[in-house]
Amino acid sequence: MSKKSVCIVGSGNWGSAIAKILGKNVKERSDKFEICVKMWMYEEMVDGRKLTEIVNTEHENIKYLPGVKIPENVVAIPDLIKASEDADILIFVLPHQFVAKTCQQMKGKIKSSAVAVSLIKGVSIDDSGMKMISNVIKEVLGIECCALMGANLAGEVAQEQFCETTIGCAVNGTGELLKSLFETPYFRCSVVTDQATVELCGALKNIVGIGAGIADGLGHGDNTKAAVIRLGLMEMIKFSEIFIPGSQRSTFFESCGISDLVATCHGGRNRMLGEHIVKSDKTVKQLEKELLKGQSFQGPLAAREIFKMLKDKNLIERFPLFVSVHYICLRESQPEEFINCLRNHPEHI
Amino acid sequence: MSKKSVCIVGSGNWGSAIAKILGKNVKERSDKFEICVKMWMYEEMVDGRKLTEIVNTEHENIKYLPGVKIPENVVAIPDLIKASEDADILIFVLPHQFVAKTCQQMKGKIKSSAVAVSLIKGVSIDDSGMKMISNVIKEVLGIECCALMGANLAGEVAQEQFCETTIGCAVNGTGELLKSLFETPYFRCSVVTDQATVELCGALKNIVGIGAGIADGLGHGDNTKAAVIRLGLMEMIKFSEIFIPGSQRSTFFESCGISDLVATCHGGRNRMLGEHIVKSDKTVKQLEKELLKGQSFQGPLAAREIFKMLKDKNLIERFPLFVSVHYICLRESQPEEFINCLRNHPEHI
Repeated sequence: MSKKSVCIVGSGNWGSAIAKILGKNVKERSDKFEICVKMWMYEEMVDGRKLTEIVNTEHENIKYLPGVKIPENVVAIPDLIKASEDADILIFVLPHQFVAKTCQQMKGKIKSSAVAVSLIKGVSIDDSGMKMISNVIKEVLGIECCALMGANLAGEVAQEQFCETTIGCAVNGTGELLKSLFETPYFRCSVVTDQATVELCGALKNIVGIGAGIADGLGHGDNTKAAVIRLGLMEMIKFSEIFIPGSQRSTFFESCGISDLVATCHGGRNRMLGEHIVKSDKTVKQLEKELLKGQSFQGPLAAREIFKMLKDKNLIERFPLFVSVHYICLRESQPEEFINCLRNHPEHI
Repeated sequence: MSKKSVCIVGSGNWGSAIAKILGKNVKERSDKFEICVKMWMYEEMVDGRKLTEIVNTEHENIKYLPGVKIPENVVAIPDLIKASEDADILIFVLPHQFVAKTCQQMKGKIKSSAVAVSLIKGVSIDDSGMKMISNVIKEVLGIECCALMGANLAGEVAQEQFCETTIGCAVNGTGELLKSLFETPYFRCSVVTDQATVELCGALKNIVGIGAGIADGLGHGDNTKAAVIRLGLMEMIKFSEIFIPGSQRSTFFESCGISDLVATCHGGRNRMLGEHIVKSDKTVKQLEKELLKGQSFQGPLAAREIFKMLKDKNLIERFPLFVSVHYICLRESQPEEFINCLRNHPEHI
């Protein structure tokens, strides 16, 4: 088998943390992988210098992951096509709203035998509705695309704190290849074939995270938070069973399921949004401007799309947590109502 | 059907929070239950007055649950036999080490038709090994005994913060009776027949809680904590499958399972123990003296018994988290080793 060359499409904090892992791994597994890892980096000026040049000389992404050394065999490249055209493995780790546009630029210019893996949580939402990020990549580029997600806050991974992740890979063989590319003693990978559930978890957990933040904002303690997490998990499972043929309950026991949900409900940005919704009367848009400098929270977008899907199937009553979060994000329902919606949850019957 | 009379055996903070619920519920459901709820209270002097008298005049347990009103139809009784002899439903909510002795005193003096429910988490451990608390009660008193447990910190329940609990009841019918006795809009009860797993969760989660505390003490963040919770849950499930015939995975999705585990790993006293084990070189006994005024932590006791059971069956290697917590509690292994034990967890293979 010829050696696989790797390109990281994206270079934010998660992309840079992954670059640290991959740079080391390809050297140790040079029988399988080309030594040079290319990282496509959207060019920016930082203190009067190009960010790619800083990364390639100082081996540190001083803007998005300061203080963490990136191995020297990772090369930042500002030209998307130059970075990706020879790659056998394309690792997508961009903000979700840039995925489609980036793939359009790459279309027809990459290897047709390449495989992709999406590290992007959340779903793509456009006029036609909700779509898994991996499907966006697959459809535009015409190549196989897996997913890798779990309780993986970038800063903690970069510090080599022990964690786990889940590789969802519907196609045989690629999962094991990706495991050998990503796994380290502090970043343990499990491979499952139930890829759609892996990705859906990454979107649905954000809705639950907002709910956990609302409970926090209302001054509730560990009991209530634990109930929100459990009821949220049960809605995630029920939703997957209805909308993903073949979705497996065991996938929720992987890092992409329960671990990521628990971490999101304690430390994530959607949890923070929930808390702010209780403590101010600002809209989600206003809070995005204030808290995320204009980036968007994934939770409210996912809640809106999920709500549409539930309404279409007449399933609103079965998902009181998801639905309540949606109405509260729209400011059509008071945050105080959130807890009331849980009191007669279908899970209690 | 004649009205059932209720006795609460125990009156600490959890017992008093439950007294608040039951006092109100029996009045609202007086077709089913006698209006007077008796609460056995070990007599103590507080500021020169008897605690039972304080509870019966001021309707507040000023020592164990100050600031919370207990309904006036709950009567504190210092004599165990007088409190329990007429009861149809006996609610055990004592520190686990007093259960056997208390039951011995009650033996032959209660209604033979009475049913019991244990609200006591953890297991009973004596020279003959580990035993479920409900089995201790059953064996001594010769009556049916169910279990009620979940993510239920007493103080938060007393403040009427929304939470859930699980009633484990192997016998048909009693579960629904108990649900109608305990359930309120802020305390939602689910009934399952898999009682042994419900109780075992209450013991095993404390071992995982120590692990979570160790991770905290070592300075790890949300990723690692989420991984500890997940791997701990997988060991809990595996252990139950091996040692409890008929144990069901669905029980772990109830409040007694995942909710209580998550709450324990974020706010429980065994988590606190784990953190102190990292930050000092004191023994568990010394930490019990300091932190619990001589009471004992459940986690290390459970870890020791679980370790024996695993060793007997040659299963040590399958449960690295449980085993590592045990050795660290004995101070035979360094806390730093805890994370290393998770790196090659059987769940990753």
